[in-house]
Amino acid sequence: MTQGTTQGGTRAAVGDSEFDRDTAVTRREPGVYDAELSAGWTIINAVNGGYLLAVLGRALSDALPHSDPFTVSAHYLTASQPGPAVVRTELVRGGRTLSTGQASLFQYDAEGREIERIRVLASYGDLDALPDEVRTSAAPPDIPPVEHCFGPEDGPAPVPGSSAITERLWLKLDPATLGWALGAPSGKGEMRSWFGLADGRDADPLSLLLAVDALPPTAFELGIKGWVPTVELTVHIRCRPAPGPLRVAITTRNLAGGFLEEDAEVWDTAGRLVAQSRQLARAPRG
Amino acid sequence: MTQGTTQGGTRAAVGDSEFDRDTAVTRREPGVYDAELSAGWTIINAVNGGYLLAVLGRALSDALPHSDPFTVSAHYLTASQPGPAVVRTELVRGGRTLSTGQASLFQYDAEGREIERIRVLASYGDLDALPDEVRTSAAPPDIPPVEHCFGPEDGPAPVPGSSAITERLWLKLDPATLGWALGAPSGKGEMRSWFGLADGRDADPLSLLLAVDALPPTAFELGIKGWVPTVELTVHIRCRPAPGPLRVAITTRNLAGGFLEEDAEVWDTAGRLVAQSRQLARAPRG
Repeated sequence: MTQGTTQGGTRAAVGDSEFDRDTAVTRREPGVYDAELSAGWTIINAVNGGYLLAVLGRALSDALPHSDPFTVSAHYLTASQPGPAVVRTELVRGGRTLSTGQASLFQYDAEGREIERIRVLASYGDLDALPDEVRTSAAPPDIPPVEHCFGPEDGPAPVPGSSAITERLWLKLDPATLGWALGAPSGKGEMRSWFGLADGRDADPLSLLLAVDALPPTAFELGIKGWVPTVELTVHIRCRPAPGPLRVAITTRNLAGGFLEEDAEVWDTAGRLVAQSRQLARAPRG
Repeated sequence: MTQGTTQGGTRAAVGDSEFDRDTAVTRREPGVYDAELSAGWTIINAVNGGYLLAVLGRALSDALPHSDPFTVSAHYLTASQPGPAVVRTELVRGGRTLSTGQASLFQYDAEGREIERIRVLASYGDLDALPDEVRTSAAPPDIPPVEHCFGPEDGPAPVPGSSAITERLWLKLDPATLGWALGAPSGKGEMRSWFGLADGRDADPLSLLLAVDALPPTAFELGIKGWVPTVELTVHIRCRPAPGPLRVAITTRNLAGGFLEEDAEVWDTAGRLVAQSRQLARAPRG
C-alpha cells in the first residue's frame, strides 16, 4: 500500500501536480502576485491553513533573493474563502545567506476592497548550501507500518463532514491516535500519520508548509470536537525532504485558558527531521 | 536563598524596576515610540534578544486595543546596539478578543538614517478574560531546589566574558545542565534554571518575553562555544504568572545544517505553564 498515484497510474511530478497548480501565483507587478484559492483544500467550509501558507510561501520564494523557506511565521486574521486572492510581498532585508520578507494575503469584499486574511514574516535561505552535519537527539515518531495505519478510504470517513482536502492528501493515521474516530479518544494530545499527496507528488519545502497543518486536530484525541482555528503558525524547514512518504507527529502539551499549542515534527524517508512547527490555536468549547 | 532584592533590601515593584525603566517607551506620535536600549542587558557586546522583544512588546501593549501578548513572532535582522531606538507599530487587525499588530525596532546610522533591527508580528488579548480551565499534560521541569542550584555569584563566572545582563538577572542553574561551565558538557541539548530579576521584581507577561531567552545557550551543553544568534523567536504567553521565581527549561532536539532550535517552557510558582517559545538560531562553528 504505497503512496497514491494519478488516475493514469503514474505519480505526479513536483511542478506538475494538483498542489503546484493550486498554489500557483502569477506576478502582477514586482512583489505582487495573483492567486486563485482552490476549493480542493477545504475542511468543511474552511480553507486549510497549511495550504494557504504554501501559497504565501510560493510568492515569497519568487520575490526574495533566496528561494527556500527557513522559518515562516504566520498570523491568521480573517477566514479565507475559495476564489481570487492577491499576495503582496516586501523584502525586509536581503543578506548573504538569509533574506527576510513579509507577505500578506488579501481577498476582496463585495465592493472589491481588499481584506487581509493572513500576514507572514519569513526568513529564506538556500537549503542546499547548508553543511551536512547532523547532531540531532530527536528520533523519528514510532508510527506502525503503512499497512497497519488507516486513511479515509479504509472506513467511515474519520474526518467529520465533507472535506475536499481528504481527496488531495494521502493520509495513513496511526491507529493509536484514531480513538476519536471510534468515539473513544485516548485523552492524549497526540496525532500521528504517514503523509503524502494523493497524486503521488513528492515533498518539497513548500509542501512541508502544508504537511505541518494537514492532520486532524490533536484536540479530537483530547475529546474535543469542532473547529480549532489557528491564531499563529510558525514553521521551520530544516532540510530538503527525500522522496517518498513523510511521517508527521503532532503533540499538544498545554490546553488551557481556551487555547492550545500544536507542535508538529515532519520526518522524511531518510530518517531526517525536515520540519518543525508550532501553532497557537483556539480550543473549541468541548 | 530567595530571589534578589534591591540594594535597600526591598523588592522592586512591577512598574518601578530596572526592567521597567530599561524597557520604557515614550510615545512620539500615535503608534511611534522612542526607546533607549540599555547597556545593562548585554552579553559580551550583544543586546539580549529577549530584552529587545520586551521593548517591542511594551510598545505594542500601548498601541494595540488589547494589552497582553498572546503570541509574538520576531525576526532578527541586524545586531542592536545600546543607545537610542524607535519602535514603529501598526494595527493590523482589531478584533473582539484578539488584536494583531506589527512592530519594527529601528536604530540610527552615522547619518541618522533608520536601520531596522527586528520586525515583529504579534497577537494580543486579555489574559484575565481567559477561562480558568487547564487540561495540560505537561509537567514542570525537574529542577533541584534553589539552594542546590548555582548562579554567577556562586563561583567563577559560568558565562564566558563580561556580561552586564548577569547583574540584572537572578539565575540559579540546575547543576545537571552546568557541565559546560566545568569543561564537561553533558552532550544533551538541555538548560534549566530558576529565573528572576535581580531587584526582585515579580514576573509579568512582558518579562516572560525576556525569560524565554535569558539562559545560557543549550549549545554550550552540546559542546559548542560561541555566539548563537537568533534568526527568529516566537513566544506564546499562556497565563499571567504568579509572584515568585520562575522555572525555565530549554531543550534543543535538532542541531543540523548549521542551525538549531531552542524550545523554552516557563513555569510559575503556582505550577502553571505560563509561556512556551521556540527560536531558530545559527549554530556557532564549534
